[in-house]
Amino acid sequence: MSVSDVCAAAKLAARELAATPREARDAALRGIADALDARSSEILEANARDVRAGEEAGLGDALIDRLTLNEDRLAAIARDVRRIAELDDPIGEVIERRTLDSGLEMTRVRVPLGVVAIVYEARPNVTIDAAALTLKSGNAVVLRGSSSAAHSNAALAAVAQEAVAAAGLPREALSILTSGDRDELRELATQEGVVDLIIPRGGEGLKKALKDVATVPIIYAASGNCHVYVDADADLEMAREIAVNAKVNRPGTCNSAEKLLVHADVAPAFLPDVLGALLDEGVELRADARTRALAGPLADRLRDAGEEDWPTEYLAMVMAVKVVDSLDEAIDHVNTHGSGHSEAIVTRSDEAAHAFTARVDSACVYVNASTRFTDGAEFGLGAEMGNSTQKLHARGPVALRELTTYKYVLHGSGQVRS
Amino acid sequence: MSVSDVCAAAKLAARELAATPREARDAALRGIADALDARSSEILEANARDVRAGEEAGLGDALIDRLTLNEDRLAAIARDVRRIAELDDPIGEVIERRTLDSGLEMTRVRVPLGVVAIVYEARPNVTIDAAALTLKSGNAVVLRGSSSAAHSNAALAAVAQEAVAAAGLPREALSILTSGDRDELRELATQEGVVDLIIPRGGEGLKKALKDVATVPIIYAASGNCHVYVDADADLEMAREIAVNAKVNRPGTCNSAEKLLVHADVAPAFLPDVLGALLDEGVELRADARTRALAGPLADRLRDAGEEDWPTEYLAMVMAVKVVDSLDEAIDHVNTHGSGHSEAIVTRSDEAAHAFTARVDSACVYVNASTRFTDGAEFGLGAEMGNSTQKLHARGPVALRELTTYKYVLHGSGQVRS
Repeated sequence: MSVSDVCAAAKLAARELAATPREARDAALRGIADALDARSSEILEANARDVRAGEEAGLGDALIDRLTLNEDRLAAIARDVRRIAELDDPIGEVIERRTLDSGLEMTRVRVPLGVVAIVYEARPNVTIDAAALTLKSGNAVVLRGSSSAAHSNAALAAVAQEAVAAAGLPREALSILTSGDRDELRELATQEGVVDLIIPRGGEGLKKALKDVATVPIIYAASGNCHVYVDADADLEMAREIAVNAKVNRPGTCNSAEKLLVHADVAPAFLPDVLGALLDEGVELRADARTRALAGPLADRLRDAGEEDWPTEYLAMVMAVKVVDSLDEAIDHVNTHGSGHSEAIVTRSDEAAHAFTARVDSACVYVNASTRFTDGAEFGLGAEMGNSTQKLHARGPVALRELTTYKYVLHGSGQVRS
Repeated sequence: MSVSDVCAAAKLAARELAATPREARDAALRGIADALDARSSEILEANARDVRAGEEAGLGDALIDRLTLNEDRLAAIARDVRRIAELDDPIGEVIERRTLDSGLEMTRVRVPLGVVAIVYEARPNVTIDAAALTLKSGNAVVLRGSSSAAHSNAALAAVAQEAVAAAGLPREALSILTSGDRDELRELATQEGVVDLIIPRGGEGLKKALKDVATVPIIYAASGNCHVYVDADADLEMAREIAVNAKVNRPGTCNSAEKLLVHADVAPAFLPDVLGALLDEGVELRADARTRALAGPLADRLRDAGEEDWPTEYLAMVMAVKVVDSLDEAIDHVNTHGSGHSEAIVTRSDEAAHAFTARVDSACVYVNASTRFTDGAEFGLGAEMGNSTQKLHARGPVALRELTTYKYVLHGSGQVRS
């Protein structure tokens, strides 16, 4: 089957799916979870073939680890699917209801998008994860994983597709593309009017490859150049804990802080303390001249920050530090160099907190808390597909609601327009 | 100033604008309205130059009419701006508020998008119209009209820009591009990260020109291939009135019906009546074979409908008519050939109404009413920028709310993530 045949079949399935009750969709999800448990040996066998091929091809340890499934990991994936089945159904929610001047009864109702394609890299768990979120929100899903996980993905998708059909949903509600070449990606990304949304889950190379060719709407997972700003009125002990947590708790994630901005009034008291704490955790620090001047005996352990540091997302145990003269300078710095993901101010001043939250142009703005909370589960959304720094449609965590659109339904009694 | 300079200045203005109270934005709008009244002779003089040049260039009467301003039209534009100033402020609305498990107080707040560019064709009233909606919703606006209205647009924009500055808002909150060449459009459409949204208001040529080059998000005004379906259980008198109104009330608008689908059970009784009424109104009818067979003496006055008719938006006094055997066939036809804009079912059956509204995949679905109600003002939104058939971000009327995004603001007391 060609890509366009697969997508056309998915479109038909999506129309059927949009009218299914939540019970049927949740049953499909529980069926997928049960099948993962019951058919684990078949899945692990397929995965072992990918892992062997990866080792022969000389993939690094980290990639091999991301590629590898085992009984525990499969069980965890199944658990996550059961958890998604328990979440509230986003579909059918009445977002607003009004009687219009014409007498029409208007409701704005949440409905699925239709066909959502997920394009992802090595990790085979995304096959199930993404399928569960997409089906739960009433969409048909077209999966396109990487060729290095082809056997694993095919086995997982086959198991899931059978469970979907067994629950009485159309089998084509879940499909997988398997050729793995670039033409396939281009063809998928140009199915305008058939595929309603593509979500890439992978690195910058994948995003760029899509961006160059896509005519279908895309929500890009965000890059996160996040900031912690320590205000003149900050509780400095709290500030240190937040700065350290935002940096070191999980430095490879997009909600980790990459930059520390410190108000000049508290810099002399604060900097030696926080720089020491960060160095103790093993963070490489890149400092501007004013920070170095205030670092005392730690100055030798700091690198110089250059202009190229301010817009950079490290995704590593690296942090750049800068002294600013005012709240305004901090806000301007964040708006100029940030990626619009997550920023925090530490302050006891309500006025400063209000100015920062009102004027910083980012998806998530924190007062006296770590940026690490930007996450679907932490936000009470149950699960997420990533974080968006786009402003249209979805900003911040992309969860079930963000995989929907709405429809106006209007009931009349013969109204015509004069 | 280059396009990128203009847009960069707009971005800075947008950040200031996002923090202004509604009073300042509304005052700017009222200032614009007052200035239109006070400086009408200067504006009409500029407009007369465009009209003369248009006549010399041989523009048709309809285009000249769209280009022409006079005292009455200017006064109507000013009235519309005052009306927009009275609308509720979309900015600052708390969309949701929750305490997270971590103790963080989360609010999701409506905020402006930032910089919105409007690209439009001849009609100079769009200059003010679009500026008013964009400024009201807290966005900076970059206008790009057509060269045939260059003098009018420049005069209108200059008047508006002075009123904006007089109200204490940054002057760069409103700017206009004037070179009028294709390079300008391309440069505007690739201001990624600076321009947050482009809205084209014009024909298919303009949309295509943008689509080919744009990297900035775009909301396209919709084409509307709208359907009226007359069910087996319809009140046939109501059905006739709705079909005629949806077609003839204003055939050049996107919410007018282009197709009439009739259930076979009622076709013998209904068709002669409705076809006669439509012919009496001067509608050109294109009929399938079954419709012709049931049309009696009117058959001679019907043209044949071809396959190319079903997906076509006429925007004219033309309608294609088809007999279907079931509600399912009607729904499939709409989903296959429609443009996802507005569709109506006429029926007394709750079951049929529910199936149609649930399964038709369009922005607006009507039961027992004309499709002509799809409109920002009719929906109680006060004004609109057009209608969207996209599913992401904005579906249906694009009004003030659709020119906004949201931001998560989270207040803590030192929370860090473990």
